[in-house]
Amino acid sequence: MQSYFFRLSFSLMNLQKPILEVCLSPALLHLFNTKDTITVIIDVFRATSTIAAALDNGALKIIPVASVAECIAIGHATENSITAGERDGKVADGLEYGNSPSEYPSSFIKGKNLILTTTNGTRLLHMVKDAAEIITGSFPNLDAVCEFIVAQNKNVLLACASWKDRFNLEDALFAGAVAAKVAGHFTINCDSTMACISLNSDAKGDYFDYLKRGAHYKRLSGYGLESDMIYCTTPNIHPVVPILRSNELVVYS
Amino acid sequence: MQSYFFRLSFSLMNLQKPILEVCLSPALLHLFNTKDTITVIIDVFRATSTIAAALDNGALKIIPVASVAECIAIGHATENSITAGERDGKVADGLEYGNSPSEYPSSFIKGKNLILTTTNGTRLLHMVKDAAEIITGSFPNLDAVCEFIVAQNKNVLLACASWKDRFNLEDALFAGAVAAKVAGHFTINCDSTMACISLNSDAKGDYFDYLKRGAHYKRLSGYGLESDMIYCTTPNIHPVVPILRSNELVVYS
Repeated sequence: MQSYFFRLSFSLMNLQKPILEVCLSPALLHLFNTKDTITVIIDVFRATSTIAAALDNGALKIIPVASVAECIAIGHATENSITAGERDGKVADGLEYGNSPSEYPSSFIKGKNLILTTTNGTRLLHMVKDAAEIITGSFPNLDAVCEFIVAQNKNVLLACASWKDRFNLEDALFAGAVAAKVAGHFTINCDSTMACISLNSDAKGDYFDYLKRGAHYKRLSGYGLESDMIYCTTPNIHPVVPILRSNELVVYS
Repeated sequence: MQSYFFRLSFSLMNLQKPILEVCLSPALLHLFNTKDTITVIIDVFRATSTIAAALDNGALKIIPVASVAECIAIGHATENSITAGERDGKVADGLEYGNSPSEYPSSFIKGKNLILTTTNGTRLLHMVKDAAEIITGSFPNLDAVCEFIVAQNKNVLLACASWKDRFNLEDALFAGAVAAKVAGHFTINCDSTMACISLNSDAKGDYFDYLKRGAHYKRLSGYGLESDMIYCTTPNIHPVVPILRSNELVVYS
């Protein structure tokens, strides 16, 4: 009898797939449960694309920090480190490198520690500290993110960094690309997720072309960063899962 | 010479189309400028659909209020009035009627004053009091809303009431239907608007069918309110523009 009930409850558990939701802006984060949830931080242009590139190209770790001052201080205290970050599309005063994924080929970044400050992505990362796991996602590691979250079999929140709390198209599109791929493995009863899946349908696989209608495309192309946006929207060129361990992003293995 | 500059500045003014934006949740409203802006309150399921129905069917005015207590008090103080509102899909205790557009045919509502309390729509309406004009929109008055905002030639904010601050699919879809229709008359540099236009594309004109994937469809169909949702997603059956005048919604004429 005990065995029968055990088998019954086990099969009911299997019927109950974990929940997947999308948070479209940090200003909406309080509406979601991040505790015991795998949170995927999404900042397509360009923080989480650069993180995937640098780690895949051999960076030992990435320390995400909120301010330029903190970036400089941690850079001084960390061996074999480089400091990076931009403000308004230019390398911030006092830092060495920018926020472009193309700046971090393996010939440069291999074996180094990257101290990175970004405006939107880093802030969000510090807002979800109670999550079961925190990983970062963008098109360069799209399939790796999907495989990771399916394998964990836990609730997932796809958290868009957005732009100063404003909804942005590129992060929502990436959330939609993930949700469309993994939908069969999750319970989805979240309108934000459904909307993101519609964006993904409308993009028809050509993410860069779709995002030309976005505000960020206009801003970054004004800085001459069109090639960066092509990089950030190219799927699966950096198939790693950056995962937060003791405030440092490292490759999940 | 003065005349030349006058003509030049006049034609430049004409080149600069007014701005159209979409706010996806009241929790994001602080990111938008509502001052001197025409704000369209959107609460498709069901407040702004019911408002269009009641006014088109001859209600003298609608007084939107936040609480049941306020609804009862204003009902007592207003001649020829009826009080209406729901909580959790049922007529709220102390009120006479519900929040279904089908409850307000002209045989019932003509010549009456409707005191209406709703959770999400009313709250948002009170949050945008500095707007140039406040109107309400839903599919039953889709084209009337579009014609009004184009004719005014002012900045427009399409403000989704959402569900307890959570993004919802039906309000965003209506915003997308409006934006797609009027896009040529406005400057659009707003990612939320672009996303809503993608939802509208994905819906391919069958709004009800598209919204079956939404959380609200599941909740309302659980209350047996599928016919209400068909009503609320039927375009242009109530071609009026409800406009706020001294805290009362009346037909714009």
